[in-house]
Amino acid sequence: MMKIKIIFLALLFSTNLFAQQATWIYYPGDFEIWLGNEMQNRRTERGAFFPPFWKMDSHYVLVEFSKKLDLKASETIALFVEGKYNVKLDGKLLTGNPDKITIPAGKHSLNIKVFNQANVPAIFVAGTTIASDASWMVTFEDKEWIDESGKASDTSSGTVYLNVGSWNFNASDTPPSRFGLAVQARSVVKSVKKQKGDLLDFGRETFGYLVFHHLKGKGNLNVYYGESEEEALSTGTCETLDSFGFDQFPEKDFVVPVSKAFRYVYVEDNPLSYDSVSTLYEYLPLEYKGDFRCNDELLNEIWDVSAYTLHLTTREFFIDGIKRDRWVWSGDACQSYLMNYYLFFDSPSVSRTLLNLRGKDPVSSHINTIMDYTFYWFISIYDYYAYTGDATFIERFYPRMQSLMEYCLSRRNSNGMMEGLAGDWVFIDWADFKMSKAGEVSFEQLLFYRSLETMALCAGIANRPEDRMKYEKLVGDLYAKLIPAFWSEEKKAFVHNREKGVMSEQVTPYTNIFAVLFGYLDEAKTQAVKQSVLLNPDALKITTPYMRFYELEALCLLGEHKHVLKEIRDYWGGMLQLGATSFWEKYNPNETGTEHLAMYGRPFGKSLCHAWGASPIYLFGKYFLGVKPETAGYKTFSIKPSLGDLQWMEGSVPTPEGKINVYMDKKQIKVSASEGEGYLYFKTASRPQTNIGTIEQTAENEYKLKIEQNKKYIIKSKFQ
Amino acid sequence: MMKIKIIFLALLFSTNLFAQQATWIYYPGDFEIWLGNEMQNRRTERGAFFPPFWKMDSHYVLVEFSKKLDLKASETIALFVEGKYNVKLDGKLLTGNPDKITIPAGKHSLNIKVFNQANVPAIFVAGTTIASDASWMVTFEDKEWIDESGKASDTSSGTVYLNVGSWNFNASDTPPSRFGLAVQARSVVKSVKKQKGDLLDFGRETFGYLVFHHLKGKGNLNVYYGESEEEALSTGTCETLDSFGFDQFPEKDFVVPVSKAFRYVYVEDNPLSYDSVSTLYEYLPLEYKGDFRCNDELLNEIWDVSAYTLHLTTREFFIDGIKRDRWVWSGDACQSYLMNYYLFFDSPSVSRTLLNLRGKDPVSSHINTIMDYTFYWFISIYDYYAYTGDATFIERFYPRMQSLMEYCLSRRNSNGMMEGLAGDWVFIDWADFKMSKAGEVSFEQLLFYRSLETMALCAGIANRPEDRMKYEKLVGDLYAKLIPAFWSEEKKAFVHNREKGVMSEQVTPYTNIFAVLFGYLDEAKTQAVKQSVLLNPDALKITTPYMRFYELEALCLLGEHKHVLKEIRDYWGGMLQLGATSFWEKYNPNETGTEHLAMYGRPFGKSLCHAWGASPIYLFGKYFLGVKPETAGYKTFSIKPSLGDLQWMEGSVPTPEGKINVYMDKKQIKVSASEGEGYLYFKTASRPQTNIGTIEQTAENEYKLKIEQNKKYIIKSKFQ
Repeated sequence: MMKIKIIFLALLFSTNLFAQQATWIYYPGDFEIWLGNEMQNRRTERGAFFPPFWKMDSHYVLVEFSKKLDLKASETIALFVEGKYNVKLDGKLLTGNPDKITIPAGKHSLNIKVFNQANVPAIFVAGTTIASDASWMVTFEDKEWIDESGKASDTSSGTVYLNVGSWNFNASDTPPSRFGLAVQARSVVKSVKKQKGDLLDFGRETFGYLVFHHLKGKGNLNVYYGESEEEALSTGTCETLDSFGFDQFPEKDFVVPVSKAFRYVYVEDNPLSYDSVSTLYEYLPLEYKGDFRCNDELLNEIWDVSAYTLHLTTREFFIDGIKRDRWVWSGDACQSYLMNYYLFFDSPSVSRTLLNLRGKDPVSSHINTIMDYTFYWFISIYDYYAYTGDATFIERFYPRMQSLMEYCLSRRNSNGMMEGLAGDWVFIDWADFKMSKAGEVSFEQLLFYRSLETMALCAGIANRPEDRMKYEKLVGDLYAKLIPAFWSEEKKAFVHNREKGVMSEQVTPYTNIFAVLFGYLDEAKTQAVKQSVLLNPDALKITTPYMRFYELEALCLLGEHKHVLKEIRDYWGGMLQLGATSFWEKYNPNETGTEHLAMYGRPFGKSLCHAWGASPIYLFGKYFLGVKPETAGYKTFSIKPSLGDLQWMEGSVPTPEGKINVYMDKKQIKVSASEGEGYLYFKTASRPQTNIGTIEQTAENEYKLKIEQNKKYIIKSKFQ
Repeated sequence: MMKIKIIFLALLFSTNLFAQQATWIYYPGDFEIWLGNEMQNRRTERGAFFPPFWKMDSHYVLVEFSKKLDLKASETIALFVEGKYNVKLDGKLLTGNPDKITIPAGKHSLNIKVFNQANVPAIFVAGTTIASDASWMVTFEDKEWIDESGKASDTSSGTVYLNVGSWNFNASDTPPSRFGLAVQARSVVKSVKKQKGDLLDFGRETFGYLVFHHLKGKGNLNVYYGESEEEALSTGTCETLDSFGFDQFPEKDFVVPVSKAFRYVYVEDNPLSYDSVSTLYEYLPLEYKGDFRCNDELLNEIWDVSAYTLHLTTREFFIDGIKRDRWVWSGDACQSYLMNYYLFFDSPSVSRTLLNLRGKDPVSSHINTIMDYTFYWFISIYDYYAYTGDATFIERFYPRMQSLMEYCLSRRNSNGMMEGLAGDWVFIDWADFKMSKAGEVSFEQLLFYRSLETMALCAGIANRPEDRMKYEKLVGDLYAKLIPAFWSEEKKAFVHNREKGVMSEQVTPYTNIFAVLFGYLDEAKTQAVKQSVLLNPDALKITTPYMRFYELEALCLLGEHKHVLKEIRDYWGGMLQLGATSFWEKYNPNETGTEHLAMYGRPFGKSLCHAWGASPIYLFGKYFLGVKPETAGYKTFSIKPSLGDLQWMEGSVPTPEGKINVYMDKKQIKVSASEGEGYLYFKTASRPQTNIGTIEQTAENEYKLKIEQNKKYIIKSKFQ
């Protein structure tokens, strides 16, 4: 009896404790490039293939994985490989393509070399103690040659190995090349007969594969998609459509091969028959870790629709909009990352997107060809580090940051500033007023300055002190130039640009907003900008949620929470009033009817589900619940809750491994944090009380309270 | 009657004169990279996959082809595409994937954008006057975005278009991805029963797919290949083998899926039955344009076996040897190019190989990881231009030359010289004596100097005057350093290297040989090198045909033709005496028996068919027939025939579009050239006579005669 128990325990021991979790591994960044090529080349425009207009890179087609082993006992490993491969054990090539290898006890080196042109070379190795995981190394040129005597060269110093990339491909039969999003069946909510066909309404914006149940017959099945009813019914101008010709379709379910975005589907002139239509909703499975609720149901609905908008656009990567481009755009993604930190806190989605956008060397144009989008990429890394504390990412990809910055530095003009050169797109915003993109655009310089700051920070993290000094010098140089070049004492604001040494007369909101966000201005200039631009009713108006994101963030930073809530109710509430079930690419309250659907010179060109429409998630989490990291990865944090005009609010903000919960009404604040430590900051005219800890006064009516892990703080007072 | 004639003529006119030859087109250099990945990843070593150890690049996966059209009449074009694609006519995207398009008369712009991850994006367009050909343009990032109003960006200045690449894919159903070499059935010459199987002899070295006729039965078919009988019979140590397991093979011909190099095949322990075995000889169809015959049958046989050796190794690319690596090596290829100019004059094989070797940016190591091989790449371009005059190639790929040279320049030491850094392989030669690869190796500096000269030349051709000045300065700087650093007055030769400022004592042949080849030395030093190294019986001996190539070339330049013939008879004749049917990677006359087969610590490691073994082709053409270009592409040439110890010789040397024929015996020289113009140079102690033109005397007993196109010159005198 005793013996059996021991054996049982030993078995448990070997399978549960010793069996490592293996995962598919590959060259870091390569899966992201490959998947981006797959995804971004799925765009169609009215049935025509519509690929990106920037360089698409490729994975390394030949890579070598390596691992040093030290085995207590002999062990047999199973090997799964995507590609043609060989295996070297202790420098000796094994015959053929072994799928099982027994390795004796002791120290060994295992090398697996894989070639794959079409897909990313990847391996999955599973043994008792051996498992392919993030500790394995990989190189794209092992440089191991042999001399005339058969001696292998020393690769210890000349070969550059990196830690492998991996994600969640944790089963041998789910290799990276078979990646697919999850799907879930969803029904039609309403079906209406029209003159020449059926109009199906799925109730709200969705993304999926249409399914025609029990389809049979022959002829052309013509499907027109619409984010609006008008679009689906406009067979000549809707943005996406499908047409399938069948000789004779046997009675069975037909699933449309490529997923599309729509709320409405119009099936016209249909000679085939089917029982019903449904859709397979296609999505990235993500946990909703952040939340927000308050006494204002409109704001709650805005938060919900924002969260849905962000989820729809958080897919293989953070994409812009789901109907049209379905591409990865750095400026758009920069905002998605920030929203993500307050909703999903899904770091792999951020790093996937960053790596896809960066691609590989050599750099031949700005990211997405857009100068500002290159800078947003740097700024996104700054944010990524702040929220996640992922120094490994910075260290590993520092060389790609550096070569992109070298590209920028090589394109400065004689004043050391960035000007659009041939092939550069200076984007800024889709604005309803005219603005110049020529010469030295102040907005671009400000983003450039912030990008250089990012490089200085990352050079430090990557332990490159010389680089850090170099970038700090560049930061200082540019910092000193901006006010002399662009600040107008007359306008009390930054002007838009300088052409041939002449400052323009135009004041646009962008530079002024970002100067506040980056804390670039002194108090006097900050207040000047607030009055002359941000709160000035005669200032040029922003009509994209894209720039409203930053505009409202700046107003929050300036303490204008009530004003911001009013703007959110008007602007996002305005879209809801027009029937939005997800937020739009652009919204101009002055437009009417189908004007809201048009863009790019096309009646339905506008995207009605655009990531940058979801910013309330970020604003509520960061500036109302008031939570943000103070040191990288929420090692320390601050909580500065602000009700604005609300009666009460509650919610939580995810951190890398936990959550920070905040409740506030006019009489109490309740907070708790499951990791890190920080301070709760609040203002009150009355004397505050806490259940735990000691409240410190920092100024008149201003207080702070240290927040430690896993304690529930209740602070009572009278709050505004 | 009249009318019918006119219609008939019009038809002729439209089909014959107007129908253009269409060809598959792609991004220049991309097919070469893709094909190299395919080919170089076919190497196996005893059944294990054996890929290269350097970086393998990829084609651009998304490219856009464009063509400006001006049509007299409306025209319908057929479109064939490798990849997912779209078509834009005059900036307007056409629906779907049209395979036929009708384009109205007038001016148009046609753009076709193709995505293909696994194979090279390529198109074939055929109409009446429209045909995809070298005049089309292509880019890997079109940078055409649209603004909010739908207006497309101006791509006229910011988008880099290159002329497309193309080869000989001249039919719609022979796209680049289906490329394959030609095959031809060849029989077994002799079959011998051995203890455990059959030994088949194909009579000479070959490369092909084995075919088992009427194979049937079940079990394992084990095949062992050998370049020698010993190798095929050594089932435990032969370099290549195949093993096919069959459950039950129905009676039919079985063709082995991957081609191999062999003369002998041993089929052991075979449980299956078959009628006979043959091979499908696999080769690149090439015309033998050069030839050489003389009164010495041994030399004629050496020339024939050299030509066969070169043909066997001239395949998808110029490869090293056919049994083992089957890789593209720059130093090996550099010699193949030169031999090719005297045999096939197949320029596409040269440019394919150059492009494959260069790959893409960024440069992360030397070509093949070997420092000398980077320099040979530059030198090969120098030669390519000299022989072919292909300035377009230089202009198009100048940026890739430049970035490779930048890589070199960034790795110079503080003396401005190249030293092996971590990961660099300093190869030079497989030598039987010890030599240092450390510090400043004089040979590498000399090659570097020549590479810089090449860059200066190419900067001129590519119209980059500033670059040209820069490289000329670098040439001058390095030129001045070599003699002070490496010339030993005591040794009357260049020494091998300098470590930490100390000149070594060793004199190796390499630097001295190349100094003669590059004309680097003055007359006194040249004669010193000749005596102290080249003709010195105590000098270190070269045992590879690789370096014998340059050694004998240097001796030819020094007028030692008789000595060279003796060496050729001994060395290449020595291999023939040992039964060679193609020339070897290495041959040391002092070795005996199976010692000749061993290398790299393996009993059959040596390649018995190695491109660098074929140098007599080059030596006979360039230094005995005496033909070489004087200005690029044989616009002008020189003919300096030299009999050495021969009674007579005759032969021809190909030029880009023609041939130069030379006959010489002791009494007459006959020459003719079908293109270009040049001079025949000869020496005679007697008074020479010519049938055409006027002989000019240039020195005592030295003469020249201008040679014009398509005239047959006969010069009579007494010649040595």
